[in-house]
Amino acid sequence: MSDKSLDELRDALRRFADARGWDAYHTPKNLVMALSAEVGELTDLFQWLTPEQAAEAMRDPELAWNVHDELADVVHYLVRLADKLDVDLVDAAFAKIDRNERRFPTGDLRPVE
Amino acid sequence: MSDKSLDELRDALRRFADARGWDAYHTPKNLVMALSAEVGELTDLFQWLTPEQAAEAMRDPELAWNVHDELADVVHYLVRLADKLDVDLVDAAFAKIDRNERRFPTGDLRPVE
Amino acid sequence: MSDKSLDELRDALRRFADARGWDAYHTPKNLVMALSAEVGELTDLFQWLTPEQAAEAMRDPELAWNVHDELADVVHYLVRLADKLDVDLVDAAFAKIDRNERRFPTGDLRPVE
Amino acid sequence: MSDKSLDELRDALRRFADARGWDAYHTPKNLVMALSAEVGELTDLFQWLTPEQAAEAMRDPELAWNVHDELADVVHYLVRLADKLDVDLVDAAFAKIDRNERRFPTGDLRPVE
Repeated sequence: MSDKSLDELRDALRRFADARGWDAYHTPKNLVMALSAEVGELTDLFQWLTPEQAAEAMRDPELAWNVHDELADVVHYLVRLADKLDVDLVDAAFAKIDRNERRFPTGDLRPVE
Repeated sequence: MSDKSLDELRDALRRFADARGWDAYHTPKNLVMALSAEVGELTDLFQWLTPEQAAEAMRDPELAWNVHDELADVVHYLVRLADKLDVDLVDAAFAKIDRNERRFPTGDLRPVE
Repeated sequence: MSDKSLDELRDALRRFADARGWDAYHTPKNLVMALSAEVGELTDLFQWLTPEQAAEAMRDPELAWNVHDELADVVHYLVRLADKLDVDLVDAAFAKIDRNERRFPTGDLRPVE
Repeated sequence: MSDKSLDELRDALRRFADARGWDAYHTPKNLVMALSAEVGELTDLFQWLTPEQAAEAMRDPELAWNVHDELADVVHYLVRLADKLDVDLVDAAFAKIDRNERRFPTGDLRPVE
């Protein structure tokens, strides 16, 4: 468990963008695209792996490093986007669990979300 | 700021998947695809908006609701994926800020990350 | 093999967009996002399938219909995007095969493209 | 207009994959991921551009080259995927235009597809 919070991360990313004059580029539309492009890079790491190889991905030091690196980029743009849209990601995620509890009562075995 | 942590979210999502027998579907390869598909749904909300309209998206109650809903799905699969890969998302994101500080010294005005 | 060409498709999609006043929305930036969102819907169809199930996807009539439907959407936006950017998709693809022939001489067994 | 057909492209891509032993990696599930990753690279080219800059993208020789290159990769994996799924992309796209003609009668001004 990190000793830093998501709010501290949001603030650090704000400062990073501001210090470089990048805030003007960080519009919601652009950030959605950047998030999508980074998920593409994450996808690239897993696309040719069998499910078994993918499950063991973190045992390969180079691949593990790349996974950390791409996940970090995904988090950066997701947190920046949520900041610009004034959405609390954790609250939104818990609220969706509540909706999903009603939508998929226990016992439903299909992953249909 | 949420009064819940990302770790509590991770645990809640574990319980949700376990209670429905979905854990077997939540392999890293499948979760990367699910994350990608959810980012696609988020993209769908913004694709026809001008940058100006996108910046005002949250003033439209229906669109704001959909943005919360899709961001929540993105967070769900991102947190599930990180859980399966044993990656701390906040630590990974802070470590990447450190690398980016060196890669893009202050003064660089291009958003090239 | 279709008795229609990709150029006929491009023209039909132009007429479709023009007749509905949608051409103004079909900017390159928006079309890239629309293409990405449609690939997300295609991804959604395959995300929970094992590789073996995915290989048999077209034997399930409902899934096969959805695959046709989503692939069609992907083609629509890809062809619209190429039209707006004045790119011949087939020529670009053949030119890339030539570059890949040099980049990956026969005998290289890793799928690294 | 290219003097080559999409069927010739499909055959050339088959030969390319076979000659490198890559056919085994080209399962539908993997190809959907590869398509998604390549659309991510295309998205990366447009993410920070304003709509106006994106509309002029092809006037920048380096950017134009990259757009051709990424579109080619998208086409490669889309054609490989359709080949593996035995889908005629042009026929599927025309069939979808027919369905969209009924779904969006002329006069509907919203891009809702």
